[in-house]
Amino acid sequence: MRSLYHYWLCPFCRTVRLVLGEKNLEHALIVERYWERRPEFVDAHPAGQVPLLVDVSNESISGSGAIIEYLNQRYESFPKLSGQNFTQMLEVRRLSDWFNQLFYSEVSHMMLYEKIMKRNLHEGVPDSSAIRRATSNMERHFAYISNLIDARNYLAGPNITSADLTAAGHISCLDYLGTISWVKYPIVKEWYARVKSRPGFRSILDDRIPAVPPPSYYSDLDF
Amino acid sequence: MRSLYHYWLCPFCRTVRLVLGEKNLEHALIVERYWERRPEFVDAHPAGQVPLLVDVSNESISGSGAIIEYLNQRYESFPKLSGQNFTQMLEVRRLSDWFNQLFYSEVSHMMLYEKIMKRNLHEGVPDSSAIRRATSNMERHFAYISNLIDARNYLAGPNITSADLTAAGHISCLDYLGTISWVKYPIVKEWYARVKSRPGFRSILDDRIPAVPPPSYYSDLDF
Repeated sequence: MRSLYHYWLCPFCRTVRLVLGEKNLEHALIVERYWERRPEFVDAHPAGQVPLLVDVSNESISGSGAIIEYLNQRYESFPKLSGQNFTQMLEVRRLSDWFNQLFYSEVSHMMLYEKIMKRNLHEGVPDSSAIRRATSNMERHFAYISNLIDARNYLAGPNITSADLTAAGHISCLDYLGTISWVKYPIVKEWYARVKSRPGFRSILDDRIPAVPPPSYYSDLDF
Repeated sequence: MRSLYHYWLCPFCRTVRLVLGEKNLEHALIVERYWERRPEFVDAHPAGQVPLLVDVSNESISGSGAIIEYLNQRYESFPKLSGQNFTQMLEVRRLSDWFNQLFYSEVSHMMLYEKIMKRNLHEGVPDSSAIRRATSNMERHFAYISNLIDARNYLAGPNITSADLTAAGHISCLDYLGTISWVKYPIVKEWYARVKSRPGFRSILDDRIPAVPPPSYYSDLDF
């Protein structure tokens, strides 16, 4: 059986779950509290990192970028999630990195650290000035992607690509935390509703972190 | 003429400079204070992002991941910086993402924001608790890569790959800021000395940010 070790509010894990969904690849989900560095997990996988995919062949690959490369190579899908030609492939890569590097460090990592990981790591209470800074950074990123969606339909062109799935991995974590005032971002909201109806999203909308319930609209396709 | 728009202490820009150096591709360096969103720059490149490469063909590509994909396709080098086979390619990708995502958000982005960008953006004075947290995160990451280097010689195997250049892009920024106590990390230090002697490093060691001088050992190959 194919297995994905993940943590609920890990944007990188969510992106892989969405890619598995697009490719219709069945898998078991195993929640790994990776920061606890469970000996059986770290002995087998020294980086102690999620997402970690163990495929039917028993090959194991970790990190969302490597897992997606692996899945694209082993289980190609049409239209290709990595882009239809070299130019679009570079744009998909640029935008995926934009979310995994810039959006992550300026918005989703900050917000997840303050609201979730500080509690998990016993590192104190959320810092409201950091949360304000992440929210203001998010507004800037949302203004930029509104322009892209308006011009292109999806982030990197007319069809869905892994850039959209990467963005949705991050944005769905923020949405779980109730930190997005959707009324301010109608274009991003309409795009997110489309991505939310993709097959891989079902299990993400069912995620429930013990002691941290999502807002009521989190699971609604029509929010 | 090939041009790279960059900012001195941008880890992603430095990685691209190192890749250009490995491939022996001449280029002009243009310093872009990207956060000022200079109209001529943003009009031509709406993302307003560095690194931005304008190649001899006049094609322009931004984002380090996309630029490196582009350069690997157009100007292949031996041994391949992206890895010698599919398995190593996945490991190069995993480790490059490790630095660009985890190390960046937990260490280099935090440190650069506190020590450089807060001043550039007029957002107050450095927060010493954030700097302490970044330093403690760095120790954890350095312990992990010490194990990899010890076992493999370079991060992803016996030869240098873009994983090493990516790591060096981040680490050289921290070193410019004088935040690494090298005596504590002998294995990482020995690896860094090897990477520091690569051709692309020369211009990086000559970087001088106005009003922020590096420590005296920053440019020394034997530090």
